[in-house]
Amino acid sequence: MNVYLDNAATTPLDSEVFEAMKPFLLENYGNPSSIHSHGRKVRSAIEYARKQVAELLNASTGEIFFTSGGTEADNTIICCGIESHGLTHAITSRIEHHAVLHTMENLEKQGKIKLSYVELDEKGHIIPEHLEELLKNNPRTMVSLMHANNEIGNINDLELISSICRKYDAIFHSDTVQTVGHYKHDLKALDIHSISGAAHKFHGPKGAGFLYVRKDSKIAPYIHGGAQERNMRGGTENVYGIIGLAKALEIAYRDMNNHQKYIQGLKDRMISKLRSGIEGVGFNGDSENPEKSLYTVLNVCLPQSNDNDMLLFTLDINGISASGGSACSSGASTGSHVLTGIKADPTRGAVRFSFSKYNKPEEIDYTVEKLSEFYKKEEA
Amino acid sequence: MNVYLDNAATTPLDSEVFEAMKPFLLENYGNPSSIHSHGRKVRSAIEYARKQVAELLNASTGEIFFTSGGTEADNTIICCGIESHGLTHAITSRIEHHAVLHTMENLEKQGKIKLSYVELDEKGHIIPEHLEELLKNNPRTMVSLMHANNEIGNINDLELISSICRKYDAIFHSDTVQTVGHYKHDLKALDIHSISGAAHKFHGPKGAGFLYVRKDSKIAPYIHGGAQERNMRGGTENVYGIIGLAKALEIAYRDMNNHQKYIQGLKDRMISKLRSGIEGVGFNGDSENPEKSLYTVLNVCLPQSNDNDMLLFTLDINGISASGGSACSSGASTGSHVLTGIKADPTRGAVRFSFSKYNKPEEIDYTVEKLSEFYKKEEA
Ligand SMILES: Cc1ncc(COP(=O)(O)O)c(C=O)c1O
Ligand SMILES: Cc1ncc(COP(=O)(O)O)c(C=O)c1O
Repeated sequence: MNVYLDNAATTPLDSEVFEAMKPFLLENYGNPSSIHSHGRKVRSAIEYARKQVAELLNASTGEIFFTSGGTEADNTIICCGIESHGLTHAITSRIEHHAVLHTMENLEKQGKIKLSYVELDEKGHIIPEHLEELLKNNPRTMVSLMHANNEIGNINDLELISSICRKYDAIFHSDTVQTVGHYKHDLKALDIHSISGAAHKFHGPKGAGFLYVRKDSKIAPYIHGGAQERNMRGGTENVYGIIGLAKALEIAYRDMNNHQKYIQGLKDRMISKLRSGIEGVGFNGDSENPEKSLYTVLNVCLPQSNDNDMLLFTLDINGISASGGSACSSGASTGSHVLTGIKADPTRGAVRFSFSKYNKPEEIDYTVEKLSEFYKKEEA
Repeated sequence: MNVYLDNAATTPLDSEVFEAMKPFLLENYGNPSSIHSHGRKVRSAIEYARKQVAELLNASTGEIFFTSGGTEADNTIICCGIESHGLTHAITSRIEHHAVLHTMENLEKQGKIKLSYVELDEKGHIIPEHLEELLKNNPRTMVSLMHANNEIGNINDLELISSICRKYDAIFHSDTVQTVGHYKHDLKALDIHSISGAAHKFHGPKGAGFLYVRKDSKIAPYIHGGAQERNMRGGTENVYGIIGLAKALEIAYRDMNNHQKYIQGLKDRMISKLRSGIEGVGFNGDSENPEKSLYTVLNVCLPQSNDNDMLLFTLDINGISASGGSACSSGASTGSHVLTGIKADPTRGAVRFSFSKYNKPEEIDYTVEKLSEFYKKEEA
């Protein structure tokens, strides 16, 4: 059996999305900056895509900027938001994605900001009182806290964080890469400065993402060049990527309720099968909590073993693709900074399973079976 | 007739390239950073693409970094090259692409560099003696001079510039976006620090480019995040884009001689038809010189007219797509900075025609006919 359970790393492209992209790969090849008919046709498709995305997120078209992905979106708002607003301090947490963490650390190294980390409780959730304390002592702050964690699935309460940020006049950015297309965002209701998204996390194409920036905030571009994206991002647009992103988001919103119910069902099934199949199994962070974690992610804390390295390898040779940490920043042979950040037991194996609408219950059962066999062999 | 003569803005995707991309849009969807089989398959395709690109340019695989396009590549090397090498001065020219110019201007505005512009002769070629003078007076310099200009087609002598840079120990970057895939680059023979490329300029996909950086030069990433591109560029890779880029470059090299001969033929045909069809026609920069200008670009200097604005519009309603300046940075309603930079006569109309292998001689004839009619009507 061939089982793909690494959908937090990337998702398969939806075939409807592919069909929407195809005309822009084949016939409509103009440069959207060109003013002739070949260009105008593509320009209007991009602007229609922007309108779609804005409407789905309840934002204005002028607030959506397309980028090459989630990482570029995070870099842009962190570097340029801090610079354009003259900020001198930033707050994040140790379990953010490297797109946020490394960008922040780099600004700190360059002496542009002082950087503080909000403390986490034993489940990996931020401690709001500590955030408040940090903000009290540091005016001119950017707060960057993700909506949901890509490794353990923990969901932050954006409304709570935003109300704290408002109180201390801080700029609040949230990396929403793991929730866009999986949860609804109402950007008129939520008091937030900016969010980021990546199409490939919700069955859209790789190489396309977006940054939402509230329209009353003016920030400089990160990538300088042509006048694209209303002077906010130079470079010929990834046209098919943008068209695919909008289509994927449209589909995600259309099917969201069923999608969520179905996938939460897979996750619940896995939790209960694991509980009965493997003694001492646990879940990292708040991963088993259906209220406070992504329905798409389950981070399993496995029994102690002499052979944790063999674990993913065993899954892999059985045709099961899952992740030992965040695939987005792997290649790093050092352990997961998220599991370290939540003080997970380093002697126990950890596997992140992440689900999509394309997974089947049988795949869950097969995976738990192979995992149980691995631990039975260990015991023997 | 539907005539696309704006290939310097962007080129149609080659159908062979589309076929090469398709499996990575459909079946091979893994994240190349994932270590399981879905990821490894894609990782090895990307590394094969890198090897292809490196071999074609006679570079090492460790010297090729994939980016979201030419603009990001230029931004990366300019910002990070200057920073990582501790440079305090840069030299460019007033007719560079905005990806270079605006990036440089921004560093100047931030007080990071002093910026100098090399003077141009009456044809728009740089004056080497002036470059040398500037270098003599400014140690710790980055020189960024493009291989060929996207609006007028002028080609710089990279060997000459590189020998001057070597003499004064300057770092030499060249924006080669208009020449990659159209001319051969031998990066072991050429003494250059870095070059940039964009796939969509040679029948590859939009949203994919590359930066070559000589391997003895260590520079920091511009986009921070995961460990992708050997820690040089965070963010999930635009896999199809990279595969398409390599395939497009492979085809370009395979067919380059015929391609060049065929397209130079179209350009020559247009020059001679224009000469006989429109009195007083000229060519901006060194655009008609087959030795010192791109075979893909012809920038036509048309007679004085009361109605220059109508010119492109008239072409457009006749189904002809051409450009009044650089489409890459249009949306700008101000005139072309390149034509201003070479002191072209602002009272005369200027149209950039740019050719590809898909153009036909009849299209050239039709275009010149429509252009002649426009000026005949004006006279009448
Ligand atoms: C939470 C989070 N933020 C940012 C990113 C970066 O997105 P991308 O790799 O598409 O640039 C990812 C995944 O890669 C992610 O999971
Ligand atoms: C000379 C030159 N440099 C850089 C670029 C920027 O490339 P891209 O728009 O693909 O980022 C272009 C064209 O757009 C160009 O013609």
